[in-house]
Amino acid sequence: MKRSSVKELLHSNKFLQEVHVKGWVRTFRSNRFIALNDGSTINNIQCVVDFENTNEELLKRITTSAAVSITGTLIESEGKGQTVEIKVTKLEILGDSNPDEYPIQPKKHSLEFLRENAHLRIRTNTFSAVMRVRSALSFAVHKYFQENGFNYVNTPIITGSDAEGAGEMFHVTNFDANKAPVNEEGNIDYTQDFFGKETNLTVSGQLEAETYAMALGKVYTFGPTFRAENSNTTRHLAEFWMIEPEVAFNDLDANMDLSEDFIKSVLGYVLENCKDDLAFLDNRLTQEEKSKPQAQRSDMSLLEKLNFVVNNNFKRVSYTEAIDILRNSKPNKKKKFQFPVNEWGVDLQSEHERYLVEKHFKCPVILFDYPATIKAFYMRLNDDGKTVRAMDVLFPGIGEMVGGSQREERLDVLKTKMAELNIEEEELWWYLDTRKFGTAVHSGFGLGFERLVLFTTGMGNIRDVIPFPRTPQNAEF
Amino acid sequence: MKRSSVKELLHSNKFLQEVHVKGWVRTFRSNRFIALNDGSTINNIQCVVDFENTNEELLKRITTSAAVSITGTLIESEGKGQTVEIKVTKLEILGDSNPDEYPIQPKKHSLEFLRENAHLRIRTNTFSAVMRVRSALSFAVHKYFQENGFNYVNTPIITGSDAEGAGEMFHVTNFDANKAPVNEEGNIDYTQDFFGKETNLTVSGQLEAETYAMALGKVYTFGPTFRAENSNTTRHLAEFWMIEPEVAFNDLDANMDLSEDFIKSVLGYVLENCKDDLAFLDNRLTQEEKSKPQAQRSDMSLLEKLNFVVNNNFKRVSYTEAIDILRNSKPNKKKKFQFPVNEWGVDLQSEHERYLVEKHFKCPVILFDYPATIKAFYMRLNDDGKTVRAMDVLFPGIGEMVGGSQREERLDVLKTKMAELNIEEEELWWYLDTRKFGTAVHSGFGLGFERLVLFTTGMGNIRDVIPFPRTPQNAEF
Repeated sequence: MKRSSVKELLHSNKFLQEVHVKGWVRTFRSNRFIALNDGSTINNIQCVVDFENTNEELLKRITTSAAVSITGTLIESEGKGQTVEIKVTKLEILGDSNPDEYPIQPKKHSLEFLRENAHLRIRTNTFSAVMRVRSALSFAVHKYFQENGFNYVNTPIITGSDAEGAGEMFHVTNFDANKAPVNEEGNIDYTQDFFGKETNLTVSGQLEAETYAMALGKVYTFGPTFRAENSNTTRHLAEFWMIEPEVAFNDLDANMDLSEDFIKSVLGYVLENCKDDLAFLDNRLTQEEKSKPQAQRSDMSLLEKLNFVVNNNFKRVSYTEAIDILRNSKPNKKKKFQFPVNEWGVDLQSEHERYLVEKHFKCPVILFDYPATIKAFYMRLNDDGKTVRAMDVLFPGIGEMVGGSQREERLDVLKTKMAELNIEEEELWWYLDTRKFGTAVHSGFGLGFERLVLFTTGMGNIRDVIPFPRTPQNAEF
Repeated sequence: MKRSSVKELLHSNKFLQEVHVKGWVRTFRSNRFIALNDGSTINNIQCVVDFENTNEELLKRITTSAAVSITGTLIESEGKGQTVEIKVTKLEILGDSNPDEYPIQPKKHSLEFLRENAHLRIRTNTFSAVMRVRSALSFAVHKYFQENGFNYVNTPIITGSDAEGAGEMFHVTNFDANKAPVNEEGNIDYTQDFFGKETNLTVSGQLEAETYAMALGKVYTFGPTFRAENSNTTRHLAEFWMIEPEVAFNDLDANMDLSEDFIKSVLGYVLENCKDDLAFLDNRLTQEEKSKPQAQRSDMSLLEKLNFVVNNNFKRVSYTEAIDILRNSKPNKKKKFQFPVNEWGVDLQSEHERYLVEKHFKCPVILFDYPATIKAFYMRLNDDGKTVRAMDVLFPGIGEMVGGSQREERLDVLKTKMAELNIEEEELWWYLDTRKFGTAVHSGFGLGFERLVLFTTGMGNIRDVIPFPRTPQNAEF
């Protein structure tokens, strides 16, 4: 008999018909009611066992997380909380789950404990909801770009370039530790390594994506990137997924438009397609907020926040305006900032970004035209000679969601900048070629996917929105 | 004035209206006709310059790959090969391209030469077509799974496990070469490395995906995987993208159904959505075939091959049947195989797979139920005790496109197998947990994405279907 998913059955009205379903027991109460889940939805289907006519040994094996096969009659439920249920006629245990050994019991576990059981935490409501939303968000990303004429580009993960400039890199090698061959000059002989040169894990696909944008027009990457930085925070991972669109002929204004339209579109997609999971996560966050002091609670629920972002314009503010606002702000005057804002040119700290977004504007903010000295070499210099066409999209509770810029398209200006920063032209000969042959204005940005998932799900730690997080001292599973 | 894409204009009938377009010059002939491309389509739009009233210095700068901005009137074309063209009223050079220096001239270059210029080869018709098809195929993959209730799972790239069993691994480390700290016993002290243990680049996300399938039901991965193998062939890459669906409650038959339905669906998507690019690639392959001796030419054109796969059933053949066919085949009897097929149990070589697919069945073939001794530890043992529920999908010209299996769901059988192969239980404690707590029949497969792109585009070398290929001694760009 054909198997139905729990999701199908919950939306079915084939009452009094025989149905067949397989899944895992979430709870079994009163020796009678199985809450069965198969991952197709956060909701369980209630399966009612005729316990008086069921073997006692079999009943004992209906434990949390046991895999079962159930055949029965779909009926309208008289109980609270569900509209349909299955009157079980046949029940088979496919795989037992010994309750004395199974680590995840039907009670509240700490997120830290669940992280240590990342292979099993997906069996909880919270993590199954988070990961289904993550999956839907991924698809929304591809859908948005594909429907808007972008081509997906897989830029290399192993890179021979160390000039990407976005952070510390992991080494990739085929040499055994401390057994790398040495040449006559006493240096490591990388010509004998797998790729014949030193290689690292990429920190960004931007530079390669630019070469593709200068031919295909609109491109995007969506792949893993890496940072070998010892950041043990709730916002950093050593391995994370990044989305990097790059568009020929777009200036910074068009780039800001793209980032805003993109974020609104993908959030709109999950609001439409993940209603049950978001309702659960909304409720979860509301419960969690209740344990906080009143002053620290959010004004908005998760769903309100998501709808607010979709329905309101992001505030666009130049770095210079932002500095003025911060300089004259209460916390600055009262010396409440750890890093006081006194002069134009300083890099903004998390506390400043949070003040702007959470206290001053109370909405996502796009800061633009940053001082050249605090930004990357490839960003386009403004006519003032001191600012570059950079932009950061800042989100409440998250901080930097997007970092982007119009790229320096002028070969001479780019070369001068690289010389100032001691970036060798030979390292990036192919990148310079894009400015040599048919250069044009172009722009792009990078969005850390896990930060988007964090915002969308209302989770508090980035380690809880990726299946198997990689962080300092942690590469389990 | 709003910019239009070349694709939009070619499908527009806004004749006599003013239009604006930006792109790169593909060719400029008779001092008058610019073939302009912006990457939105393989087709160029013809822009007709009023050369008698145009500055001669400006005309000289209209060279291959120069970036230009054009405003003009859209008119019906009288020329051959296009229906619309632009009568140019304003032309601006955005970025020059010195024809004496630009490496890619409008003539036929060798694929090898273009590989060395991977940052510029995307500006050719062939590579832009290949990469647009690759992008569309990627989207078709996500679309298929998402519409069929699968959840996308990002399994880790950096792995602490070396038991994935699919091939040689690259090391990932934060230690400088030959400067790794050593502990008191004289061994490398990996507790001081970034992750506190030895780490490698993943060869497969399957084992982690299985843990997710046992909660979400249907999942798939689509991400980069790595092989540190010195294979310098037209079918191997050190870094490639792999698609790995995994489905709870699916047996091997359902797994075969899924692989066949999936491949047909994604090929159907590109046949529908990449008509212009596939027509170009079809013609390209036909031209290339003409240079081959008659006997080596394919019976079918590229489009015929793609349609053939979409419209015909894959042939399902057990390993045992395949051995019988091979043993009694002409090439085996005439000793034409390099590896003669004499007895049951031998591993099939590429020459055998090609005989079965290209000569005997002349269609994609799914081989199943292989000898246990030549397959991985996690494959389900059949009742005969000597074969496992493995399957390989073999494609003409490509060989193995898919490798998959029903997984061994029985804890005791799996443990016995691991012990036989000296795989430590402590290494895979989390994997064993899936068999311990609510185990169930499940199956999945891996499909090398570049092999699918290779088949779909009719290209001959896998290095030509990924933007920046990584192979032994090569990690440029």
